Amino acid sequence: MWRYSEGLPVDERFAVSFEEGFTPLLPVDIDGREVLVKQEQLFTTGSYKDRGASVLISKARELGIEEVVEDSSGNAGAAIAAYCAKAGIVCRVFVPEETSPGKLAQIAFYGAKLVKVPGGREAVASAALKAAEDVYYASHSWNPFFFHGTKTIAFEIAEQLGWRAPDTVILPVGNGTLLLGAYIGFTELMKAGMIGAVPKLVGVQAAACAPLAEGFSAGGGEAARIFPEKTMAEGIAIAKPVRGGQILAAVRKTGGGFITVTDGETEAALILAGRRGYYIEPTSGAALAGVMEYLRTARPDEGIVTVFSGHGLKATEKMAAVLEEPG
Amino acid sequence: MWRYSEGLPVDERFAVSFEEGFTPLLPVDIDGREVLVKQEQLFTTGSYKDRGASVLISKARELGIEEVVEDSSGNAGAAIAAYCAKAGIVCRVFVPEETSPGKLAQIAFYGAKLVKVPGGREAVASAALKAAEDVYYASHSWNPFFFHGTKTIAFEIAEQLGWRAPDTVILPVGNGTLLLGAYIGFTELMKAGMIGAVPKLVGVQAAACAPLAEGFSAGGGEAARIFPEKTMAEGIAIAKPVRGGQILAAVRKTGGGFITVTDGETEAALILAGRRGYYIEPTSGAALAGVMEYLRTARPDEGIVTVFSGHGLKATEKMAAVLEEPG
Repeated sequence: MWRYSEGLPVDERFAVSFEEGFTPLLPVDIDGREVLVKQEQLFTTGSYKDRGASVLISKARELGIEEVVEDSSGNAGAAIAAYCAKAGIVCRVFVPEETSPGKLAQIAFYGAKLVKVPGGREAVASAALKAAEDVYYASHSWNPFFFHGTKTIAFEIAEQLGWRAPDTVILPVGNGTLLLGAYIGFTELMKAGMIGAVPKLVGVQAAACAPLAEGFSAGGGEAARIFPEKTMAEGIAIAKPVRGGQILAAVRKTGGGFITVTDGETEAALILAGRRGYYIEPTSGAALAGVMEYLRTARPDEGIVTVFSGHGLKATEKMAAVLEEPG
Repeated sequence: MWRYSEGLPVDERFAVSFEEGFTPLLPVDIDGREVLVKQEQLFTTGSYKDRGASVLISKARELGIEEVVEDSSGNAGAAIAAYCAKAGIVCRVFVPEETSPGKLAQIAFYGAKLVKVPGGREAVASAALKAAEDVYYASHSWNPFFFHGTKTIAFEIAEQLGWRAPDTVILPVGNGTLLLGAYIGFTELMKAGMIGAVPKLVGVQAAACAPLAEGFSAGGGEAARIFPEKTMAEGIAIAKPVRGGQILAAVRKTGGGFITVTDGETEAALILAGRRGYYIEPTSGAALAGVMEYLRTARPDEGIVTVFSGHGLKATEKMAAVLEEPG
C-alpha cells in the first residue's frame, strides 16, 4: 500500500511496513448476485487495521517517538503492537481485565506490555487517555494518521476497478476507522480528478449496539445515546463512537445510510461466506448480512463493493459456537 | 500464483483461485543476520497449503470430479475444504476423533463433511484410503497435483530475487509437501535455464518426531522407524512420511541436510518472531529454530531463504500456553 506514499502524510523513508496491502478484490456470489469483496482479512495481523497501524507507527517513527499507548483488546491492539515490534517502539496496550487469554496472546507475542484495567471498556479508555498525557497516544479512533492509513483501501479499490469508483461501498462501522478512511480516500481521489464521484457509503451496525444507525434515522448530527446489548459482532460494538458526528456527516454527504443486523443474520452470513470458501470473523459476517439486506432493494446494475474486515481465525471460540447451535 | 499457469499441469480455464500467492519475501533480523522469509501464513486459509489445494482442486474440476476425500485435521484439511467450497465440489475430511472443536470449526465452516475416526492418525488414514476406493483422493501427501501447487513457491522466490536462486532454503518437513514442491519447482527452473542451480535444501524436524532426520544421518534411503513423542510442532509430526525416500533423495541431491529442534527451541523462536512483528504457528517456529541453529555454521555470505508456513491464529491455545509458562 506504500505504492501510494505520495498521498500519505509520512516521509516514506520512515515507513514501517510488511509489504501489506493490495488485497484481492474478489467477486462473491450472494443470493445470485455478484458483489466485489476486498479481502482485508489477509493482512499480517489478520485485519484491515494494519493499514492504519502502518501509517500511524511510521509517523511515530518519523517523529522519533520511542513509546506509545493504545487501548483495544481486539484487532487494533494487535495491529499497533505488531508495527511497534517492527519499528522497535515500546508499546503499552490497555485492555479490559476480563479479556480472554487467547485474545491477548497475539498482542503479547508482539512484545506489547498488556495493562489490564477493571471496570469495562470506558474505564480502559480513561486509563489509556491518562497514560497518554505523558506518552504518544497511538489511538485507532482518535489519531488522524490512522485514518490516513485506512484511506488506502479507497485508492486500491479504485485502482483495481481501473481507476473508477464503485456505486456503493458497504462497510462495518463501530468507531468508523474504515468508513471515514474510505470517505477520505475517495474524496481525495475525486479532488484529484481521478474518479467522478465519491461512492455512496453504507454503514452496517449490530442491532444490539447501533448508536450511529439510530442517530442517523433520528436525523440528528450526533450518534444516539443507547443502552447497548451483547452482540457477537464485537469489532463494531462501540456504544459511544468518538467521531460519531463526522461519520454521520460523511454518510449523509455521499447519499448513503445505515443498516442494522441481528446476530442471527450475522450467523447466517458467516455460514454463507464459509460455503463460498471464506472464513471470516463475526464483525465481517455482520457487514455481509448488511449487504444481503441491502441487495433486496439495490438497483439491478448497481456496482457494490464490501470488505471482509477480519479473519475467522481471530474468533475461533465464537465460530465453533455458531456450529454447535441446534439447527 | 496462477501467473505461472503455463508451468502448471492444469488447464487454466478450470483454475479454482482466490488470487492467492506472491506472498511477500521479507528480510528478518535473526541474531544480527538477515534472512529472507516468505510470508506463507498470509493465504486465505492461513497456510501455504493453499498452493497445493488450488492446483489439486482445479485439476479435480477439470476432470469433472464432484466429490473428494482427504484426511487431515490441520492446515491441509482447511485448504482442501476451502477450495472445494469455491469449486462447488463435495468434500469429506477424515479427522481423528479427539481433534478439538476449534480446529474443526474452520473446516466445517467451509462446508466440508467431517468424519471422526477413532484410533489415532493411522486409523484415520486407512479410513480415508478405504473411502478413496470410490471417490477421488485429494490427499496432500499422495496426490502429485498438490506438489505441482507447492512448487510455485520456488518460482516466486526466484522471481522475487530477480530470477536467481538463493544459496540455501530451509523448510519445515513432515510429509514433505513444501520441500518436495520446492525441489520440483527449482529443478524445473534449472532445466529451463532460468537459474543456475537448485539451492541446498535443508529440512527441519521436531526432535520428538524426526524419522527423516534420523534416516538421513543413518545414510539409508528411507525414513527411520521411530517411536514418536509429543511435540508442539504438530504440522511436521509425521512418524511415517509416505514419500520418505523421495524426500531424502531430494535433500541429498542438493547437498542439503536435516536439523532437529526441541520444543524449547521452538518456543524461543516463536517469541523471537513475535518480537519482530510476526505471529506464526508452532510448526513455523520449529523451522525458524532450525534456521537459528543453521546460522551458527553458515557461510558469512550465504543467501538463506525460509518460510513462515502457517499463521499463529491457527494455534491460539498453544500460543497462549507458551506465554503462561514460568520464565
